[in-house]
Amino acid sequence: MLRTHTCGQLRSEHVGQDVTLCGWVESKRDHGGSVFIDLRDRYGLTQVVVGPPEAQSDLIDIAGRVGTESVILVRGKVSPRLEGKTNDKLETGAIEVRCEHYEVLNPCPTPPFTPSQQELPGEDLRLKYRFLDLRRPAMLRSMELRSRIIKTMRDYFAENDFIDVETPILGRSTPEGARDYLVPSRVHPGSFYALPQSPQLYKQILMVSGFDRYVQVAKCFRDEDLRADRQPEFTQLDMEMSFVDQDDVMGMIEGLVQRTALDLKGEEVATPLPRMTWDESMRRFGTDAPDLRFGMEIVDISEISAEVEFRVFRGAVDNGGFVRGLNAKGQATEFSRKRIDELTEFVKQNSGAKGLAWFRVEPDGTLWSPTSKNFTAEQLAQIGTAMKAEVGDLLLFLADSWEVTCKGLAGLRKRLGAELKLYGPEAMSYSWITDFPMFEHDAEEDRWVAMHHPFTAPLASDLAKLKENPAECRAQAYDLVINGSEAGGGTIRIHDGETQQQVFDLLGIDAETARDRFGFLLDALKYGAPPHGGIALGVDRWVMLFAGLDNIREVIAFPKTQKANDLMTEAPGQVDSKQLQELHLRTVKA
Amino acid sequence: MLRTHTCGQLRSEHVGQDVTLCGWVESKRDHGGSVFIDLRDRYGLTQVVVGPPEAQSDLIDIAGRVGTESVILVRGKVSPRLEGKTNDKLETGAIEVRCEHYEVLNPCPTPPFTPSQQELPGEDLRLKYRFLDLRRPAMLRSMELRSRIIKTMRDYFAENDFIDVETPILGRSTPEGARDYLVPSRVHPGSFYALPQSPQLYKQILMVSGFDRYVQVAKCFRDEDLRADRQPEFTQLDMEMSFVDQDDVMGMIEGLVQRTALDLKGEEVATPLPRMTWDESMRRFGTDAPDLRFGMEIVDISEISAEVEFRVFRGAVDNGGFVRGLNAKGQATEFSRKRIDELTEFVKQNSGAKGLAWFRVEPDGTLWSPTSKNFTAEQLAQIGTAMKAEVGDLLLFLADSWEVTCKGLAGLRKRLGAELKLYGPEAMSYSWITDFPMFEHDAEEDRWVAMHHPFTAPLASDLAKLKENPAECRAQAYDLVINGSEAGGGTIRIHDGETQQQVFDLLGIDAETARDRFGFLLDALKYGAPPHGGIALGVDRWVMLFAGLDNIREVIAFPKTQKANDLMTEAPGQVDSKQLQELHLRTVKA
Repeated sequence: MLRTHTCGQLRSEHVGQDVTLCGWVESKRDHGGSVFIDLRDRYGLTQVVVGPPEAQSDLIDIAGRVGTESVILVRGKVSPRLEGKTNDKLETGAIEVRCEHYEVLNPCPTPPFTPSQQELPGEDLRLKYRFLDLRRPAMLRSMELRSRIIKTMRDYFAENDFIDVETPILGRSTPEGARDYLVPSRVHPGSFYALPQSPQLYKQILMVSGFDRYVQVAKCFRDEDLRADRQPEFTQLDMEMSFVDQDDVMGMIEGLVQRTALDLKGEEVATPLPRMTWDESMRRFGTDAPDLRFGMEIVDISEISAEVEFRVFRGAVDNGGFVRGLNAKGQATEFSRKRIDELTEFVKQNSGAKGLAWFRVEPDGTLWSPTSKNFTAEQLAQIGTAMKAEVGDLLLFLADSWEVTCKGLAGLRKRLGAELKLYGPEAMSYSWITDFPMFEHDAEEDRWVAMHHPFTAPLASDLAKLKENPAECRAQAYDLVINGSEAGGGTIRIHDGETQQQVFDLLGIDAETARDRFGFLLDALKYGAPPHGGIALGVDRWVMLFAGLDNIREVIAFPKTQKANDLMTEAPGQVDSKQLQELHLRTVKA
Repeated sequence: MLRTHTCGQLRSEHVGQDVTLCGWVESKRDHGGSVFIDLRDRYGLTQVVVGPPEAQSDLIDIAGRVGTESVILVRGKVSPRLEGKTNDKLETGAIEVRCEHYEVLNPCPTPPFTPSQQELPGEDLRLKYRFLDLRRPAMLRSMELRSRIIKTMRDYFAENDFIDVETPILGRSTPEGARDYLVPSRVHPGSFYALPQSPQLYKQILMVSGFDRYVQVAKCFRDEDLRADRQPEFTQLDMEMSFVDQDDVMGMIEGLVQRTALDLKGEEVATPLPRMTWDESMRRFGTDAPDLRFGMEIVDISEISAEVEFRVFRGAVDNGGFVRGLNAKGQATEFSRKRIDELTEFVKQNSGAKGLAWFRVEPDGTLWSPTSKNFTAEQLAQIGTAMKAEVGDLLLFLADSWEVTCKGLAGLRKRLGAELKLYGPEAMSYSWITDFPMFEHDAEEDRWVAMHHPFTAPLASDLAKLKENPAECRAQAYDLVINGSEAGGGTIRIHDGETQQQVFDLLGIDAETARDRFGFLLDALKYGAPPHGGIALGVDRWVMLFAGLDNIREVIAFPKTQKANDLMTEAPGQVDSKQLQELHLRTVKA
């Protein structure tokens, strides 16, 4: 190595040693005829002093002229810093290197921005000059954390006898689910590969092959219009096990949660993790990914509301809807009318609700709002009791369909939890949601669609409902929820061709289409498939959650924008017409 | 878990325990009113006996009817096998399970082939029914080995402070090197992503970002016409280090070679590994990937040949060519004229040589061949001395250009080494080839092309030759060779923009084109790039070498054929016209 030590390594015990350091000039300042340099590498920062008597004036001149972010090599002796000049915040803060030899390995002109500047430049500039942006210690730490989390996952599964198998990236298009990225074939004109949305079918095949336990950190692809937290390519920890039921899969993942929390945050997580059925979760939190770092559960006051004069409440119930609310403890006087109007607007945008009703709990314990005259005192008291209202609380209600009250209150609860700081910055919550419905009804197209995917097995007790009552048929499906985010989702799979065909039928996939798309899977299920199930964890999401970050682009080295551009390499780009010719393709003007 | 033990777990110490096993019916036979089943899973084979008194006749009937490869669950007591019936070859061979409960989890009709059948079916059938083929213990072992090798690699680099970084699969097309696979963009009509041929540019960017040590097991893609040992997607262990010279990179990889050889084969490998310059390797072995498991080095007898009457030899030398040969020790009487004719045909095909000259060393120590009358006795003796010929040796010669003698003799040496079993089946050889030429001259297009890639740094001592004499300019490049196969290749990279532009110039890439294709790399080199270098190891090749396999499709779970088809999923396939519309594409009839 060109260096003897890294910039994070030297301590008092090294004083007197001759060392060579390499790194980037983070900053420099002239002081008393010497140049003081903060030399940076991945491992830390070391102060280098270029000055007499060790350095001649020519070296001092060079050091003075070199720009920040230049790459230099310095040789010199480790010396203690002068008294009062030590820096406790820096691990190398007790020493400095007194430079005897100084070499510019690569000079740097003034860069578009410096990694150490106080105010971050706009994200587009950071993405264009990603090599500068990645020099920021926060980005480096984030990428180190990602590397560690993935290593922890791989170690854990290896210790548990899982085989790491790479499944193909060049696969076959199966127009279920999201839109595929396609790859034209040169050898087979008019044919296309598709990039995998997940290794789902391959991992089921591996179970049929007797691999027993499979794991892979897999790249997956979806050509969807991107939301803030989506990327066209993303990473999932994909696993599958044979001869298991859902408790086995969940138990395996709980071990990983424990390991990860302990390794990364020193946190002891008790298992089994809390479990809640999908029904219960929708009832108590309005969502299938509840944030359990705080309470503020949804309360249903539909029964009371059916009797009140207030038309908004009674009308909702009369129309088969619900009145459900949240209690923002102690917030009665904190929320001005203006802030409540903001919340109302937020809920409308978020859920399509028509409005937000509210009550303050007055110092005398009674509920008050502009509409409280439309309630009897007894009704108000009943509502207060239902909501466990105490003096100073703010009660917020939606009166609408089940779906709208769920969506609206879940969003409101999430926002209030964050705004009111109902949990500490380091708090973590882990839970399972189980017993999902097998199917959702797509009203627009009047057909059933699979809530997870068409290979999910129904609960054994609900098998008969497949035919009789698909709406009530529940799945052997389980989602892992961390801090209110879906951190993983899995199911036990159908392992016999007959049930599989029954589900295909229900989804409107006839036998011919099924054979065309999934023929190999149906074959595989025919020739000795074991009971099996698994899960996929969102790796980008895990890193965000454990790093406490909320921008997915901070946990990916070279992410794409919401328009799916890589601003650094300028991908996607134009290609030679010869390349298209070879692929038997012509572009069509939009 | 549905089972209490795996099929590879039970021993004498379990006798008397009630157990539940799950697995595949490998075989079954009726004997004395009982059904004997070999039950198989990934971990092994256990004998299950369904017979009286434990099993009633209905169970015995069921067990007798169930086909091989069906998936079953059995419960019963572990019992010692009868004396004389134990099987020492089987780890579970001391016991059997006497079945009390028998459940068919999934019946299997007669499959297209069974994993245990003696004769393997054709490869196409195996690939179509890959889920059956992967049940073969040989395939399972191969995939387990692959998983272990990759784990060893990852552990090793993690211990050495490397950060595992995922680089994008959806990248930018850079029409250097092989043909890219393209991915049309839906959002940007007429634009395309390209799948990476390697993460080369990204890893250099990471060094510019100060990541210091990067590693990734990366999927790479090349749309080339496939040779037997190539796949459209392949896996490489990709790494890069900053502030290093080539000894540092080689040293790091030698540690990995030691670790892998020890973990997988219990073999102690001494380091540093043998190193040879490219020049020397071409001279002694005719190839840059010499198999050092055996000797049989190439000997140059051009000097003697210049004097002989034999026109083939003298003519070659007169025309600026060479006469070089191999000594097949003790093979004089083993090789009939017919076999020598076969070798001649092989060499012609392989290298374009016009013929193969040969001599036998007769019992009296003299050299004889049909053409030996065209040599003086003294010349024959000189040749014998040069070739270290002994009684009974067979000497084989090519007289041709340097390139043809290299290629022809390298191929011949490889074939003879294998045919004559000049090395044991477990022998391994590891070595480095260094000091490659920077450029090769493409005679057809009359231009220089980079031997490795255009980012490779020249030897410091050869920097001046970049301009003056590109043909003699050597690179800081190093290939790892295992058993005569290139197992990895790396270089120290150019880390300043000026040298990079000089190399681009020489390759005929003008400043504008360079900016267009590699602008972000040139920018990165400008804003503080450290000296850096790395290597990429062919993971598929490593697994083949350590598993002793010679078919790449045996080390990949779901490989493609030489026509780039996946016979199981039938990828690539047709897609809906709607999908193409969304991508602004039209297919063109071939």
